[in-house]
Amino acid sequence: MKLFEKTISEEYKFEGTVINLKVQQVELPNGKVGKRELVEHPGAVGIVAYLNSDTILIVEQFRKALDRTILEIPAGKIEKGEDIKLCGIRELEEETGYKAKKFQFLGKIATAPGFSDEYIYLYKATELYKGEVNRDDDEFINVKSYSIDKIKEMVKSGEVIDGKTIAALAYL
Amino acid sequence: MKLFEKTISEEYKFEGTVINLKVQQVELPNGKVGKRELVEHPGAVGIVAYLNSDTILIVEQFRKALDRTILEIPAGKIEKGEDIKLCGIRELEEETGYKAKKFQFLGKIATAPGFSDEYIYLYKATELYKGEVNRDDDEFINVKSYSIDKIKEMVKSGEVIDGKTIAALAYL
Repeated sequence: MKLFEKTISEEYKFEGTVINLKVQQVELPNGKVGKRELVEHPGAVGIVAYLNSDTILIVEQFRKALDRTILEIPAGKIEKGEDIKLCGIRELEEETGYKAKKFQFLGKIATAPGFSDEYIYLYKATELYKGEVNRDDDEFINVKSYSIDKIKEMVKSGEVIDGKTIAALAYL
Repeated sequence: MKLFEKTISEEYKFEGTVINLKVQQVELPNGKVGKRELVEHPGAVGIVAYLNSDTILIVEQFRKALDRTILEIPAGKIEKGEDIKLCGIRELEEETGYKAKKFQFLGKIATAPGFSDEYIYLYKATELYKGEVNRDDDEFINVKSYSIDKIKEMVKSGEVIDGKTIAALAYL
């Protein structure tokens, strides 16, 4: 079946600092009209940063959406007009204080395609060296490190639940 | 550092059929006030359904948020009050026409913790047999199947970009 949904009309219901929400009327593949509630997000970069051959940086962060802390790879939103790779380099240093001599694209993931256009671009950073921590005013982070094997264990035990972090394992 | 953000106030900006959006004022770990734009989602179930020992069902679906079709494991939203496992069993049959004799929990992922509370609960379904397709009125799907090795290839080549599908590979 040919799958396509043409936009008939759209209305923004919320325009925020980080996300926007719009409701679209769409023409469904069978010609009928459907409704889509969609969240626009600027996209983000996530970094698998190797401290050594088997250990990567992990940040602990309180996520208000979940009302709990979670463990995740360092990541951050792409600023308007910002180059994606430079965003990754910037976010890694700002969040963890590390720079990397090598920064390699792994792949991109659609995090929540049912309702959001957010893509997270995943990079692998190696040959780390010390830079300078410089977090956003509303960003509070504990920097940790774990071996890849330990992270795989923590995925299976449910200690690591962050989608981008778990997805990143598939590229390594 | 102790990481916690206490809700000071919240206001709903949008209440939809699938998602709600609220803006919260929160007390940050340093005592200052921050703002969070958050999307409430009912959660979903994704199913890794084995047709045989190395081949799983994949659905092709147009995702209006991305304005393109993507390949993903069968998945669907949890209905109000619905048991999570029963949701997975229901969605697998509705979308693909298959039932499964064995349905095993793999883990849960937070898809977009920076702005949404959506959890996707992943299950492994085996010993499939034919049931009945019964899709939502606005749901159009092509059912396919691929070997796990082929899916891993398609992740690395960028043909598979769906976060939950890529994350599911980590549990297998």
